[in-house]
Amino acid sequence: MTSNPGDRTALLTLGVDGGTFRLRPAERPDLPGILRLLADDQLGSSREDASDPAPYEEAFAAIDADPAHLLLVGEVAPADASGTRLVATFQLSFLPGLSRRGSWRAQLEAVRVSEDLRGQGVGAAMVEWAIEESRRRGCSLVQLTTDKSRTAAHRFYDRLGFAASHEGMKLVL
Amino acid sequence: MTSNPGDRTALLTLGVDGGTFRLRPAERPDLPGILRLLADDQLGSSREDASDPAPYEEAFAAIDADPAHLLLVGEVAPADASGTRLVATFQLSFLPGLSRRGSWRAQLEAVRVSEDLRGQGVGAAMVEWAIEESRRRGCSLVQLTTDKSRTAAHRFYDRLGFAASHEGMKLVL
Repeated sequence: MTSNPGDRTALLTLGVDGGTFRLRPAERPDLPGILRLLADDQLGSSREDASDPAPYEEAFAAIDADPAHLLLVGEVAPADASGTRLVATFQLSFLPGLSRRGSWRAQLEAVRVSEDLRGQGVGAAMVEWAIEESRRRGCSLVQLTTDKSRTAAHRFYDRLGFAASHEGMKLVL
Repeated sequence: MTSNPGDRTALLTLGVDGGTFRLRPAERPDLPGILRLLADDQLGSSREDASDPAPYEEAFAAIDADPAHLLLVGEVAPADASGTRLVATFQLSFLPGLSRRGSWRAQLEAVRVSEDLRGQGVGAAMVEWAIEESRRRGCSLVQLTTDKSRTAAHRFYDRLGFAASHEGMKLVL
């Protein structure tokens, strides 16, 4: 997956092995790279099927059309400008609600970092950006659920200040 | 809390002690009754402050303006038509996402049933309605988080088919 960074403004930058990590809003041509990240995952491999892109394209359009949802991607740009590589993604949604004094809450979904970029602070930098953006938009809370089998993820979010205070319950339709 | 049911169409009806339970979309005059339900709760009592209605009114307007969010109320109408009483509420939100083959997910928030109506099937009927509505809208999943201290709620959702498969992690801003 390569793309031309052009005049895009990075939401955050971070030096990593092989170049500079940059976070930016996802664009339509990023979709195959995002799907690769979603499928290359202990749980996602059985849930995703990129051979039929149509439902993913519809979902991208729905997310892109609604300012309540931000879809972001992280890419690594090598120092020699030989082409960037998409290495991370997440969705941040802003939800109104009456509880907690009518406060907005932010929700993280589908956080993924490419295996070979782990341990370099990319995930932490992304989630810290999401927390700051949520604060900037006046949210009272950032929430997420992670599968109980993702124990490394629980430690990761715990270090970033999240409390595992709730049961995350799901009903597959 | 009384209201005139007028020509409102109930989304579901159920016979309960003292009359007929009806589920319907919330309207602006329901707000004080909803806030009473949110505050009359083991956790909500410290989180809510109905003495300042402004943030709740803004939140109601934000929910009401966005078809992605449904705010519902349940009321009991006595057989003698002496006035209805607001006894339940929940919010159902529909969220787009790329994962799970680009499927929409439904999210339940702020589910409350008045103490004196518990054990009569009102909560189950509401959540079953929410599940059906989510299926009708093509969602692949219904999700919610409940505080780990709400053990009765966990059993309730388990009986309705939800699996406590995830950690629900929260960061208060």
